[in-house]
Amino acid sequence: MLASLAARLPSAPAGTGQIWVGDDAAVVAPPPGPLLLAADVVVAGVHADLAFCGLDDLGWKAMAVNASDMAAMGGTPTHALISISGELTSAGLDRLYDGISAAAEEYRCPVVGGDLSGGSGLVVSVAMTGDGSGPGQPVSRSGARPGDIVWVTGPLGASAAGLALLAAGRAAEAPHLAQAHRRPRALVAHGRAARAGGASAMIDVSDGLALDLRRLAVASEVDVLLDRVPVAPGVELAGADPENFALAGGEDYQLVFAGPDRDAMAAAFSAAGLDQPIEIGRCRPGVGEVCLRGQPLDPVGWQHRW
Amino acid sequence: MLASLAARLPSAPAGTGQIWVGDDAAVVAPPPGPLLLAADVVVAGVHADLAFCGLDDLGWKAMAVNASDMAAMGGTPTHALISISGELTSAGLDRLYDGISAAAEEYRCPVVGGDLSGGSGLVVSVAMTGDGSGPGQPVSRSGARPGDIVWVTGPLGASAAGLALLAAGRAAEAPHLAQAHRRPRALVAHGRAARAGGASAMIDVSDGLALDLRRLAVASEVDVLLDRVPVAPGVELAGADPENFALAGGEDYQLVFAGPDRDAMAAAFSAAGLDQPIEIGRCRPGVGEVCLRGQPLDPVGWQHRW
Repeated sequence: MLASLAARLPSAPAGTGQIWVGDDAAVVAPPPGPLLLAADVVVAGVHADLAFCGLDDLGWKAMAVNASDMAAMGGTPTHALISISGELTSAGLDRLYDGISAAAEEYRCPVVGGDLSGGSGLVVSVAMTGDGSGPGQPVSRSGARPGDIVWVTGPLGASAAGLALLAAGRAAEAPHLAQAHRRPRALVAHGRAARAGGASAMIDVSDGLALDLRRLAVASEVDVLLDRVPVAPGVELAGADPENFALAGGEDYQLVFAGPDRDAMAAAFSAAGLDQPIEIGRCRPGVGEVCLRGQPLDPVGWQHRW
Repeated sequence: MLASLAARLPSAPAGTGQIWVGDDAAVVAPPPGPLLLAADVVVAGVHADLAFCGLDDLGWKAMAVNASDMAAMGGTPTHALISISGELTSAGLDRLYDGISAAAEEYRCPVVGGDLSGGSGLVVSVAMTGDGSGPGQPVSRSGARPGDIVWVTGPLGASAAGLALLAAGRAAEAPHLAQAHRRPRALVAHGRAARAGGASAMIDVSDGLALDLRRLAVASEVDVLLDRVPVAPGVELAGADPENFALAGGEDYQLVFAGPDRDAMAAAFSAAGLDQPIEIGRCRPGVGEVCLRGQPLDPVGWQHRW
């Protein structure tokens, strides 16, 4: 890794025997419970349009989407590895790392290693470790049972609506939506609260509620009957069908989860000092369909990328 | 991750509570000792020329270079995450995974997650975890002391000579050199033996002996006096100065290491059933220079890429 970048990264805490950036591999303490591992790649022009967001936003996003994977297991991010390929100026690389560093601080997830290479395009690959300790086991996608309630941590569609407004040159009408697109938040505390509240299955909304909830339903072998689709304020500015942004837009990184006990879930979110999650439906015996107003949603229709 | 690829990857051992591919994050058991983390990216056209090696070789290499990072700490690879971006046909992706899977099996390092994305070029980012348990601490680059002996696990230059012969259409003259270039080996058992033999510092030869040994010397604040540069058999076929291939060629993934005790090192390699390492020099007080035949090697001259 380039020395100028390495100099920006934090050093291992002294006296711990840990080694962070600068050796063949980083040496860190293992988590006390299960080790969580995830990797997501962000490609300029595919996952982030540099016409509408800065290199710092792209760096932030690469970290946040991985932290969101940890959140969706009810875990906590611990360490990140970053591999970058592409032709960047020194100033560009610096700006990319501004976003990476800000996210590393926000999620208390230091970057302890990585790689830097030439190449066409700009590809930022993040791998993240997480601490899966906690009450019970990390929350998979596959544990929802018939009768479980389904919640989402907040209203949806903000990121997609923000992108639409940015593309139309109308971002000033709803700066909070453009910000939702540029700087998605990983809801780590919410994920831990859901786990503490007895969540049976959980996933983050990266590709849109319709598709991600279907993944949970398929993995759990249940159907999900949705009562409602909460839409983020202002999404109606971006198009005639705000619900469509919420169902298909993706990149909101809200968490959607199932669980058997309304009171336990409410207590867990209260205890964590978080707003209550929004109840949106219920699981019933089935094969993985998601139904809204009595009609199954077509998952293919919502799959905007593979 | 694409379903067809996920189907090729192994499942977590039953009854362990582990989750591998298919959820937001993988859930694995943490190592009993220090957790090692490394990430290296392989870019087609930068680190591997697809005119001279197959997609399967590129996949193998992406895994092997990371396993070599674990070897260079005296650790053992445990789990891999693979992020791929680029436009590949289904057959191409399958061939890439042939190499990845072969290496995962060779190094007993299952792929437990990753990501797949479109993008220009072909970028394979591997992040690997390792088990840093063992006698003492994982071996850093910085522990060499004046008086320490310096060894290398084997002769050098084979990979660079292989590439030169491939480029000249003369690979048939020395198939073992072409193979050394296409399928580099990570020397995990050797790294563990060096650690058991009391290695004070270690690094893998990825960029050439001159540059990598300098990195060790600088980190350890010693000079290294080289007595000899062992050159792999057949390298002389590729050029008039075989020693240059060994010093500057890189990608050999031999391990170079220092240690105070010749007998202990010999005993550790014997106990592991490995060929003895080759003694190539000695450390003396200094500031990070590497000297051969009384002359300091110019590290910049050997730095063929950043």
